[in-house]
Amino acid sequence: MIAKAKIKFIKSLQIKKYRTQEQCFIVEGAKSISELIESDFVVREVYGTKAYLESHTHLLGKQKIYVDEVSVNDLQSMGSFKTNDSALAIAEMKANRQPILADNEFGLVLDDIRDPGNMGTIIRTADWYGISKIIASPDSVDVYNPKVIAASMGSFTRTTIFYTDLVPYVSNYKGNVYGAFLDGENIYATQFNTGGLIVMGNESNGISRELGSLVTKRITIPRIGKAESLNVATATAIILDNVRRKG
Amino acid sequence: MIAKAKIKFIKSLQIKKYRTQEQCFIVEGAKSISELIESDFVVREVYGTKAYLESHTHLLGKQKIYVDEVSVNDLQSMGSFKTNDSALAIAEMKANRQPILADNEFGLVLDDIRDPGNMGTIIRTADWYGISKIIASPDSVDVYNPKVIAASMGSFTRTTIFYTDLVPYVSNYKGNVYGAFLDGENIYATQFNTGGLIVMGNESNGISRELGSLVTKRITIPRIGKAESLNVATATAIILDNVRRKG
Repeated sequence: MIAKAKIKFIKSLQIKKYRTQEQCFIVEGAKSISELIESDFVVREVYGTKAYLESHTHLLGKQKIYVDEVSVNDLQSMGSFKTNDSALAIAEMKANRQPILADNEFGLVLDDIRDPGNMGTIIRTADWYGISKIIASPDSVDVYNPKVIAASMGSFTRTTIFYTDLVPYVSNYKGNVYGAFLDGENIYATQFNTGGLIVMGNESNGISRELGSLVTKRITIPRIGKAESLNVATATAIILDNVRRKG
Repeated sequence: MIAKAKIKFIKSLQIKKYRTQEQCFIVEGAKSISELIESDFVVREVYGTKAYLESHTHLLGKQKIYVDEVSVNDLQSMGSFKTNDSALAIAEMKANRQPILADNEFGLVLDDIRDPGNMGTIIRTADWYGISKIIASPDSVDVYNPKVIAASMGSFTRTTIFYTDLVPYVSNYKGNVYGAFLDGENIYATQFNTGGLIVMGNESNGISRELGSLVTKRITIPRIGKAESLNVATATAIILDNVRRKG
């Protein structure tokens, strides 16, 4: 049986301050935990129901993981999911290191994405389109937020997210910098190179002025109807689809 | 000053049972309320802060609306938003009527979309691409759910959502029925007609078997990376973008 103090500790990892302090984060649900264990993340502990543990002995033997049996109630009180009848894992955060972008590679630059659902969905979509390096402003939502982890559907295990000041980062970049604006070139006509940065802006304010001035190619998704704008995760997906069909 | 009982009544409209009973729903935030009042929805009441009411007298004079001043605290306790410093409106639900689809028009068919954020984002994206008619299975999330309204960013005012059993509806449809599967034709190669139904499936289970058998053209978004699937709102956006660029 799991101690109350342990449940309290795990629960605290929903808050960034405690994650930073402990340098670890939670992953919930059988599928995401499988992808986590198969990845290069270090997994410390897995708490699972009897049924989960019995059907995942092979997987759980892969890393040196502390495993304990818990009830569904425990799972739900230690985690962020409303319902979780399988398991919860604790893994170690990775250091915030700048990824190396090859010349013929796309990197996604996120200027102040605040909503965890958007961030997770963007990670999932980037992974679908084979983009594994994301550079995010320091004020963007933390990738280790449980809602980001959940919305990424396991794609966080295949994606590097580097938090840094975007203006110096983009200034130092030598290739094309594409940025989504409402008044740019029609993406259907844009000739995308085989590599570059793709900059997406904040949910309410778009790309900041200073960062915008570093964009070398302003692009726009054509609108036919009347909505004023698109959700940022939606816009990212449409742009990546257009980049890939032409790349 | 607003009565406690009124706050309680408004709060109850977050729950479908009470919305159905009262045939009304809430809209939060200045921008969505402006679009609501400019639309053909009947608006009954608007509760706003002093600053909001003073700066929106012209707008609020457009319909015969009961207007009352409330505090930010009141707004937050009667509504669903964590922060709301402008206003909350109560509007009348529309009857569930089947929209007429022209031959050269696309309709979006949603098979059991459960997440309110996904539903709202789909409505917003459909509106961006000029699709105003959505046909949803009875178990799909209610369009009048405050989270759907919020995520649609005002696009719910320009969209008809018709809840009905999808199998008879699609069976009676004479044109092309496009459906998103993981094993369909590459959407980059698909010749979309100028009209038809586009069917999107449930977040976990996709399109149900019976409905899937009515799909005349199975389509797929090409994958380059490793994510197993896309979020349904994301997939809808990518498909609509591909439909429109070729339509």
